[in-house]
Amino acid sequence: MKDHVYKLIELTGTSTTSIEDAVNKAISRAHKTVKKLCWFQVVETRGSIDKGKVQHWQVTIKVGFSVEN
Amino acid sequence: MKDHVYKLIELTGTSTTSIEDAVNKAISRAHKTVKKLCWFQVVETRGSIDKGKVQHWQVTIKVGFSVEN
Amino acid sequence: MKDHVYKLIELTGTSTTSIEDAVNKAISRAHKTVKKLCWFQVVETRGSIDKGKVQHWQVTIKVGFSVEN
Amino acid sequence: MKDHVYKLIELTGTSTTSIEDAVNKAISRAHKTVKKLCWFQVVETRGSIDKGKVQHWQVTIKVGFSVEN
Amino acid sequence: MKDHVYKLIELTGTSTTSIEDAVNKAISRAHKTVKKLCWFQVVETRGSIDKGKVQHWQVTIKVGFSVEN
Amino acid sequence: MKDHVYKLIELTGTSTTSIEDAVNKAISRAHKTVKKLCWFQVVETRGSIDKGKVQHWQVTIKVGFSVEN
Amino acid sequence: MKDHVYKLIELTGTSTTSIEDAVNKAISRAHKTVKKLCWFQVVETRGSIDKGKVQHWQVTIKVGFSVEN
Amino acid sequence: MKDHVYKLIELTGTSTTSIEDAVNKAISRAHKTVKKLCWFQVVETRGSIDKGKVQHWQVTIKVGFSVEN
Amino acid sequence: MKDHVYKLIELTGTSTTSIEDAVNKAISRAHKTVKKLCWFQVVETRGSIDKGKVQHWQVTIKVGFSVEN
Amino acid sequence: MKDHVYKLIELTGTSTTSIEDAVNKAISRAHKTVKKLCWFQVVETRGSIDKGKVQHWQVTIKVGFSVEN
Amino acid sequence: MKDHVYKLIELTGTSTTSIEDAVNKAISRAHKTVKKLCWFQVVETRGSIDKGKVQHWQVTIKVGFSVEN
Amino acid sequence: MKDHVYKLIELTGTSTTSIEDAVNKAISRAHKTVKKLCWFQVVETRGSIDKGKVQHWQVTIKVGFSVEN
Repeated sequence: MKDHVYKLIELTGTSTTSIEDAVNKAISRAHKTVKKLCWFQVVETRGSIDKGKVQHWQVTIKVGFSVEN
Repeated sequence: MKDHVYKLIELTGTSTTSIEDAVNKAISRAHKTVKKLCWFQVVETRGSIDKGKVQHWQVTIKVGFSVEN
Repeated sequence: MKDHVYKLIELTGTSTTSIEDAVNKAISRAHKTVKKLCWFQVVETRGSIDKGKVQHWQVTIKVGFSVEN
Repeated sequence: MKDHVYKLIELTGTSTTSIEDAVNKAISRAHKTVKKLCWFQVVETRGSIDKGKVQHWQVTIKVGFSVEN
Repeated sequence: MKDHVYKLIELTGTSTTSIEDAVNKAISRAHKTVKKLCWFQVVETRGSIDKGKVQHWQVTIKVGFSVEN
Repeated sequence: MKDHVYKLIELTGTSTTSIEDAVNKAISRAHKTVKKLCWFQVVETRGSIDKGKVQHWQVTIKVGFSVEN
Repeated sequence: MKDHVYKLIELTGTSTTSIEDAVNKAISRAHKTVKKLCWFQVVETRGSIDKGKVQHWQVTIKVGFSVEN
Repeated sequence: MKDHVYKLIELTGTSTTSIEDAVNKAISRAHKTVKKLCWFQVVETRGSIDKGKVQHWQVTIKVGFSVEN
Repeated sequence: MKDHVYKLIELTGTSTTSIEDAVNKAISRAHKTVKKLCWFQVVETRGSIDKGKVQHWQVTIKVGFSVEN
Repeated sequence: MKDHVYKLIELTGTSTTSIEDAVNKAISRAHKTVKKLCWFQVVETRGSIDKGKVQHWQVTIKVGFSVEN
Repeated sequence: MKDHVYKLIELTGTSTTSIEDAVNKAISRAHKTVKKLCWFQVVETRGSIDKGKVQHWQVTIKVGFSVEN
Repeated sequence: MKDHVYKLIELTGTSTTSIEDAVNKAISRAHKTVKKLCWFQVVETRGSIDKGKVQHWQVTIKVGFSVEN
């Protein structure tokens, strides 16, 4: 069995609705240029506030994908 | 351009429904006394359990707001 | 008043829908064998990706429960 | 059931006798102005030294209290 | 010389008197079911507050014990 | 000798020139309302970028001050 | 597709030869009672010293395994 | 309002004069290939020493920039 | 003397034999596209398990390389 | 006013009675060779267990002292 | 090529002017007794406050130097 | 039984072959001047790269030894 190498990139997705949506926005964007995305891990959850409500959820994730040899 | 100073306060919001709702509860409460809330960051996500289900989501956040000179 | 002792166990719940659902899956499973679950804290939020979308949310939590004397 | 919001403040209590006494000094002082203190967590334990002995225990804690709606 | 394997479990001991007593309460309880406890390390020190005083010290520890082959 | 209690507040100072200036801006602002500031510790150093240059240094500090009994 | 739940246990393996051997010792021992071990992560690497040489490598790992529903 | 996605890259800038200069060196270099740099955060401050003086300040930062959809 | 700027990328190397081999696999792969690799630091050591043995060592590293001006 | 330089050393004190006693044992020992000890900070609290009771408290501290110019 | 061994010592430098100056004060002092200082890393940045201004910057660093065989 | 005091020193061992060898190099060197080395813990694993291969493993450890009274 072959030993794979993976690269991790760090992205911040934003969403007006939820943490899950912010993560999916980031992954969806990365998928446009990198097809072999395998896993992610949440690094930080922040957000902006407007008039006493969360305006944007800002979720920073690391995304790992296989690098072909 | 003026150099601002911001203050950060730490709050724990609770909710029976979701992490996002717990965060909004905390921000909404802070907004009653401080109008210039700018951003937040999630510090910790915990909760209480009742009969094998999450009873309350308890999300601790830091909230930053501008301090007028 | 009696001084209680609690035990903490670490679980990873998975869900195709949300972070909250993954946490509830883990707690619900633990409840089958341990009835006195009291609280939990989120340790890590990760996930697997398939075709540019989150496939499974994988949320690791610590769950505390009372140990009878 | 109502969803509460809690505020956390950070205090350093000092004592010549013990860690426990330093924590109680800080909580006792906070109790003078805030009646609904609920819980605390130790953030850091430091101290000053005089002639080869601990002079003051300096224990920094976060104290959480309920914020009325 | 044999290579041992150890298991670590996480416990929260509580006490109305001191941090040391809370740790001993947790270890004493674990000793009822596991005889070969070797060492512990403090993970977190928290507590509940009642009327401006520490009501319960809640000290979370990891306890290691030898697993027989 | 009396056992003091200190309170810590968290502030973010900003400056177009340096980290040191951002810290002093935050302390100077806090000094307007609290006279007994004793010490600070840097929590985080961030900043905004404009046209390939640091626009604002944003330094978050904790500031401790003596609380009179 | 079914949503799995995993449990994580913490073990310290020891070995006179290498870090890898200490990890395998811990996993091998856990395998005696739990068949579905899936993954591990290294938590800490320590060791004892005798006469200026490493006597035992002590590697603490978390091991995750699937819990059947 | 559109939900943006940001990418974070990690850089180490070096300077013989100051921490601020090292950060600006790294940002200035990144600006040559990426125009939409938005913010940075300091990850680590190190340096080399020559004849009892700091020779190079080595400041590692994360830089975030908007990724166009 | 010129002030260099370095970029850090994050990679996960895998190996069936050892931690060192997993690191070298990741570096060797990166070397195919980037010639000026200078240093690395280990971020995390994990692995998969099969039949009570480590199947793949998965070592995540940050690799730094000089960016030409 | 002169700018001082301080050195920090790391010590583990042990005691059969309490955390405070373990800290004082370490400081008392350091005081035999270094007279200008100024402050300490607790790094870690561990201990050995014998027959279900704490046998030795092992408290690791950093101790700072002024280095004369 | 010979395999070197390095020792790391921890120092706190203080300065009334800047973080960089505090670091250089600590390194300059260490250089009086140890000639082969190679690198440093910043561990913590704190300071004392007097009349609403930073009085002393207190920067704790680790300094590494080669130990001759 | 006597209460011991231990000192911890921090060392970086280097090796062209393995992590274990780098640790043993550091311990072996310390043993030349301090005979009572008891235990170590790995603090950081880094290394230098040459032509796409690890040139030197650089492993930083803390080593504890008993200080005689």
